[in-house]
Amino acid sequence: MSLNLDFKVQKEQKVREIEDSLQNYLPKQKGYQKIIMEAMGYSLLAGGKRLRPMLMKETYTLFGGHSKVIEPFMAAIEMVHTYSLVHDDLPAMDNDEYRRGRKTTHVVYGEDMAILAGDALLNYAFETAVKAFVLEPEDSLTIGNAIRVLGEKAGIYGMLGGQVIDVKETGHAVSKDVLDTIYELKTGALIEAAMMIGAILGGASQEEVKTVERIASLVGLAFQVQDDILDVTSTQEELGKPIHSDEKNEKTTYVTLLGIDDAKKVVEEKSEEAISLLRTLPNENPYLEELLMELIHRKK
Amino acid sequence: MSLNLDFKVQKEQKVREIEDSLQNYLPKQKGYQKIIMEAMGYSLLAGGKRLRPMLMKETYTLFGGHSKVIEPFMAAIEMVHTYSLVHDDLPAMDNDEYRRGRKTTHVVYGEDMAILAGDALLNYAFETAVKAFVLEPEDSLTIGNAIRVLGEKAGIYGMLGGQVIDVKETGHAVSKDVLDTIYELKTGALIEAAMMIGAILGGASQEEVKTVERIASLVGLAFQVQDDILDVTSTQEELGKPIHSDEKNEKTTYVTLLGIDDAKKVVEEKSEEAISLLRTLPNENPYLEELLMELIHRKK
Repeated sequence: MSLNLDFKVQKEQKVREIEDSLQNYLPKQKGYQKIIMEAMGYSLLAGGKRLRPMLMKETYTLFGGHSKVIEPFMAAIEMVHTYSLVHDDLPAMDNDEYRRGRKTTHVVYGEDMAILAGDALLNYAFETAVKAFVLEPEDSLTIGNAIRVLGEKAGIYGMLGGQVIDVKETGHAVSKDVLDTIYELKTGALIEAAMMIGAILGGASQEEVKTVERIASLVGLAFQVQDDILDVTSTQEELGKPIHSDEKNEKTTYVTLLGIDDAKKVVEEKSEEAISLLRTLPNENPYLEELLMELIHRKK
Repeated sequence: MSLNLDFKVQKEQKVREIEDSLQNYLPKQKGYQKIIMEAMGYSLLAGGKRLRPMLMKETYTLFGGHSKVIEPFMAAIEMVHTYSLVHDDLPAMDNDEYRRGRKTTHVVYGEDMAILAGDALLNYAFETAVKAFVLEPEDSLTIGNAIRVLGEKAGIYGMLGGQVIDVKETGHAVSKDVLDTIYELKTGALIEAAMMIGAILGGASQEEVKTVERIASLVGLAFQVQDDILDVTSTQEELGKPIHSDEKNEKTTYVTLLGIDDAKKVVEEKSEEAISLLRTLPNENPYLEELLMELIHRKK
């Protein structure tokens, strides 16, 4: 109980630190194009779990990292995540007018500016990550490796590829293999990037980075299946968004494919495997372990 | 005359080499998301002057560069240029159905896939540039510097910023100051990136990179003002696209602001200044000099 309370307090503190850092990494210099900076800030500072930068930082700490070189990457991955939301919400995509209770970017700034704001956030993610070279020029090759992972996991073989399949398959029933690919890419890839970049910059060996990638992949899948379960078992009050949306949209999910009980079993198995793998690593970070458990077993 | 013929033959050869290289750098591995690879290829291999990779390579050569490390950057800058065209053509932006006589990406693949294809090309540009680290790991800091320039010149303080101002000001008369900013950013920035990256990877000093940036900025402006002039003086046959489009769209241009004669004077002055500056550099590349002259004085 006291551990849990401690965890909650720590987590809130960490979220605040991430939000301050994000604010710092947003573009400052204005000009005739200042509306795009406003649109970027509007979407980036709209709240959210800040899960990816937090996982990145905790994995970095796990491997003994303790410098500021991680910060531009923490901001960068949240920019990539945010750009994907801005573009997903567009009229030509999911056509969503609200996200987390606020109007979406295209509703506030127009469709053209929302397209450009998404582009701007993606581009600025790389501009931001590159700032790490100035912080630790002697580690340029390692930083280059971290940027490689960011690019690969965000792109067509990662998050964006998952989004492509999801868009293509909207309205069809899909096989478990396709569903797994969507989850692995759309949700998993950026969680993998977060934890792998933390490990790489923290000085992990190639072997350890591979283990971290596997942990993150398991966490991503468990996280997403838990989402499927909550859509059926939660209440709108608890979840903060409409429930039964998958059923309404005739979406194939782990629950429609396996039923609730087996879906729950998948969450259990994958999360246990993730935690066991985490414990095979030479160092420990109890906060990270608790964070993973909380993510997977969350009620919202 | 024979020099000119020589130049033309050389240029065609160089364009072919760039197209082959682009093809090589396109994603190969397919999967459920293969439609996005097709859309990327459709837009990237749709022809065009290949001006930016060519300027990059020639500037690289000017500074004595002679390795393959330039190639991923040549592909990357063309991907950035192409993504900007795909998104510019979208219904929510310029709503163009044809480009260079072919249907635009969203007409062929749908608006959702065109948004994702643009995103994919931008992301893949960075994934591609990062391949340089494997080619020359000992030059990681220099490669990081080149990626920094690519990001900055493509983003909100570069090309994308110019596009934002252009979209915002569509339908209004604009001042010369705003017009200059649009030209400097929307057209100039990526030409600057091309030549600066060539210089950086070719081993130019910081001072020389600054000179190259200035040359590219002058070339970009002269190139764009020449575009304004051709829109008024050329024929549709010669230009290969509708003329008088600026007048029809009530666009402010150098011609509407200064008149044809003074606009021509600007092209002369800026191009002479660019060539003079180029001649202050320690090395020479006669092909590059001729390329710049041709660009500025082109008839289409």
